Amino acid sequence: MKTAICSGSFDPITLGHLDIIRRAAACFDRVWVCVSPNAEKRSQMFAPEEKLLLVRTAIGELPNVSAELWPGLLADYAVAHDADVIVRGVRDSSDFNLEFQMARINGGLRPGLETVLLPAAAEYQHFSSSMVREMIRYRQPLERYLPASVVPLVHELRRKEESESHGK
Amino acid sequence: MKTAICSGSFDPITLGHLDIIRRAAACFDRVWVCVSPNAEKRSQMFAPEEKLLLVRTAIGELPNVSAELWPGLLADYAVAHDADVIVRGVRDSSDFNLEFQMARINGGLRPGLETVLLPAAAEYQHFSSSMVREMIRYRQPLERYLPASVVPLVHELRRKEESESHGK
Amino acid sequence: MKTAICSGSFDPITLGHLDIIRRAAACFDRVWVCVSPNAEKRSQMFAPEEKLLLVRTAIGELPNVSAELWPGLLADYAVAHDADVIVRGVRDSSDFNLEFQMARINGGLRPGLETVLLPAAAEYQHFSSSMVREMIRYRQPLERYLPASVVPLVHELRRKEESESHGK
Amino acid sequence: MKTAICSGSFDPITLGHLDIIRRAAACFDRVWVCVSPNAEKRSQMFAPEEKLLLVRTAIGELPNVSAELWPGLLADYAVAHDADVIVRGVRDSSDFNLEFQMARINGGLRPGLETVLLPAAAEYQHFSSSMVREMIRYRQPLERYLPASVVPLVHELRRKEESESHGK
Amino acid sequence: MKTAICSGSFDPITLGHLDIIRRAAACFDRVWVCVSPNAEKRSQMFAPEEKLLLVRTAIGELPNVSAELWPGLLADYAVAHDADVIVRGVRDSSDFNLEFQMARINGGLRPGLETVLLPAAAEYQHFSSSMVREMIRYRQPLERYLPASVVPLVHELRRKEESESHGK
Amino acid sequence: MKTAICSGSFDPITLGHLDIIRRAAACFDRVWVCVSPNAEKRSQMFAPEEKLLLVRTAIGELPNVSAELWPGLLADYAVAHDADVIVRGVRDSSDFNLEFQMARINGGLRPGLETVLLPAAAEYQHFSSSMVREMIRYRQPLERYLPASVVPLVHELRRKEESESHGK
Repeated sequence: MKTAICSGSFDPITLGHLDIIRRAAACFDRVWVCVSPNAEKRSQMFAPEEKLLLVRTAIGELPNVSAELWPGLLADYAVAHDADVIVRGVRDSSDFNLEFQMARINGGLRPGLETVLLPAAAEYQHFSSSMVREMIRYRQPLERYLPASVVPLVHELRRKEESESHGK
Repeated sequence: MKTAICSGSFDPITLGHLDIIRRAAACFDRVWVCVSPNAEKRSQMFAPEEKLLLVRTAIGELPNVSAELWPGLLADYAVAHDADVIVRGVRDSSDFNLEFQMARINGGLRPGLETVLLPAAAEYQHFSSSMVREMIRYRQPLERYLPASVVPLVHELRRKEESESHGK
Repeated sequence: MKTAICSGSFDPITLGHLDIIRRAAACFDRVWVCVSPNAEKRSQMFAPEEKLLLVRTAIGELPNVSAELWPGLLADYAVAHDADVIVRGVRDSSDFNLEFQMARINGGLRPGLETVLLPAAAEYQHFSSSMVREMIRYRQPLERYLPASVVPLVHELRRKEESESHGK
Repeated sequence: MKTAICSGSFDPITLGHLDIIRRAAACFDRVWVCVSPNAEKRSQMFAPEEKLLLVRTAIGELPNVSAELWPGLLADYAVAHDADVIVRGVRDSSDFNLEFQMARINGGLRPGLETVLLPAAAEYQHFSSSMVREMIRYRQPLERYLPASVVPLVHELRRKEESESHGK
Repeated sequence: MKTAICSGSFDPITLGHLDIIRRAAACFDRVWVCVSPNAEKRSQMFAPEEKLLLVRTAIGELPNVSAELWPGLLADYAVAHDADVIVRGVRDSSDFNLEFQMARINGGLRPGLETVLLPAAAEYQHFSSSMVREMIRYRQPLERYLPASVVPLVHELRRKEESESHGK
Repeated sequence: MKTAICSGSFDPITLGHLDIIRRAAACFDRVWVCVSPNAEKRSQMFAPEEKLLLVRTAIGELPNVSAELWPGLLADYAVAHDADVIVRGVRDSSDFNLEFQMARINGGLRPGLETVLLPAAAEYQHFSSSMVREMIRYRQPLERYLPASVVPLVHELRRKEESESHGK
């Protein structure tokens, strides 16, 4: 049995992320989605627990996929789940250069831990969480970018956030 | 059970190719190595059957790996073996651009056929069959570039080729 | 009135080429498609006049587009039609590097001649004439890759070519 | 009549930006320069109105070019002016990867909105607003990087800024 | 006699930096290491003087290499030492694009000042200061990433930093 | 004393090549230009001895530069001249990827042999021998692309070639 890790910040999870997770779930027997809290990053729109909730909502129907928050090194998460591979989506050559470095770093930390790169699908090649955050800020329809089950949750979390900001 | 295809021209198989095949054999349950004859290419140093012999010699010890010649489309080879993924090594961003296109072509021919890219290992990142052919032409020691079991075979095939050229 | 040139070898014209021509025809008032004969290239599948016929068939319905063979420098073709810009499709960063050089060469030959690059559409990003030639050789259905009006012509030209080869 | 949008943060406008605007004004009938306020970005050296003033000063002599501040989505700005294309300068393959994504995002938001990429001119290929801000900070001569009409304005705005900082 | 500059932020110096400095010291007669304070950067883990101390400790054994802090333009530092070339390590095509721009900027500021790029060694290709800072934060063994002489110093500086943070 | 090798096929030498050689001659004490015969390449326009003659004519005035034909491995040429570095010009990220591989191959063949990459100058970034061969074929003025001293020689060699072809 082969176990794969899909990792990311998922702020928030997009249809592009979900496509990679689905394809990983078709290539490997078990997939763990590792949500990095990135608590120190200023640009985070969603809190770590919110990000996890959105990921879990998105992957709801996939039987061999689970998601967790992990504040530590990705290589340690892979060890904790006895994973064989890290799966990463790649959209273009700039992405590739970053992932190439990350693959070497993780393979150096845990020899034998493989990284496999999945080329982005045509329809999601330009998707990113930062693009989605822009769409949220400019109040664009989100159905095109987010898993259907996630859209109402994102709206709810944003309303809560805005009413809290107002309350201050 | 997940089946993977490793494809290439393998003119000849290098330590870089063998590294990708080994890693594919660790990530997936079954690996078929698809040797493209490329009979029309002028620059081929080895005949299709010679290339296959070298590949089979190199993978000798790997229990879940087999190699075959396949003159047709790679996507058809994947269908013939009911394969889930094509595995390709990637050395840099130029390689990535080529593989990205090939992945889309193959996924277009057979929807659901996945391509996964493995970043080249540091020690083999600059390896290519054309480099090895140069080393053969300039009579450099080949142990650094070729699987150990393959080196004597390559020398033998080259001697045969040269004596045949002389005989003309 | 602004005039644009779309250039290429078009061996044969693909849906990707036609998409770029259509978009050029939407951005500029007049488009001339410049078909390079590339007579010396060994890898050409179609004769120059055949390539032109296919291009003209493909662009049939576009009112502001015409196509011609031009055996000379592209920059001279632009002068001949008093064109303002050369339009080129770009699929990835490797393509970009090539087109960047070509743009400087053409701008150097005829100062003021602009080159504008159009990013390939998602559905055609992996299209190329060499891919289509492979599909023709392996007798794959061509409707996905070629303009509908061009497919029967390609089949006919290939049959003619094959019967002539047989006749030798 | 074809209308084009040139967009950017222009913090401040450089000779490289002006070259792209000029070339867009030669390729299209009407050009609107869309200055993004980027009010939230910490690294901004000039206030939105200052950036607009500098852009307007730079384009002063071009009859078919106007500039405006626009705090919203670029695709909405294009709609507001009934524009056909967004024009973006591209300096290298990393730039290209970013612009390729942006082109798809904007084409997704407003189908039919085209993005055309202009390769940077040789003399401006290494120009960027961040480079110019460094030159301003290190009090280098600015004539080489900025439109001549803009240099005295930049000096004046910086003096004002510095005397205000001192006053605190 | 040829003099070279190796520049960087060195937050902290890694084995990858030291490899570039050593190779520069083999190619040129005299090497000055220019440590940029980057005092305004929030992400700096070490203070400018600490960064310089670490660099000087790392290069201790190299007879033709010295290191200094320099708060100004790199091109002015090169003038101050009558240097002929700036030496920069390059890990991949994204790095290359950045260095290409920097080389043009510095050559523009001081005509005749050359920039030479050294391809990263295979074992250090994925090294970066930001990766090392992650390893420090996650308390990983640092011997693999840092010059041996630097490791105890880094531990000491971090302990000091942490006890000061606690004291607040 | 530091010795550098500039290598290439030089079919023919361009102003871009000469710029790299000149800059190498400013960075290093002695420069050997290694002209690869590439006798087997079909696309060669000039014979090996003609290529060498053109290179020697171009470098005539540079006191610390010499040129030779070398049919063997570049790494062996470097050994033969006790050279410290190979110098290569790089125009863009695609070039970089190729040179990165070559640097590793040569460093692997002769440990300690360094490769340094020089970014192409703005005015020559789009120059290549293949572009120049096109200009020769289309009888364009060559002064912009070739060293002044080389232009009459190129015309003479082409006239000789053409009269020989006619004589057949």
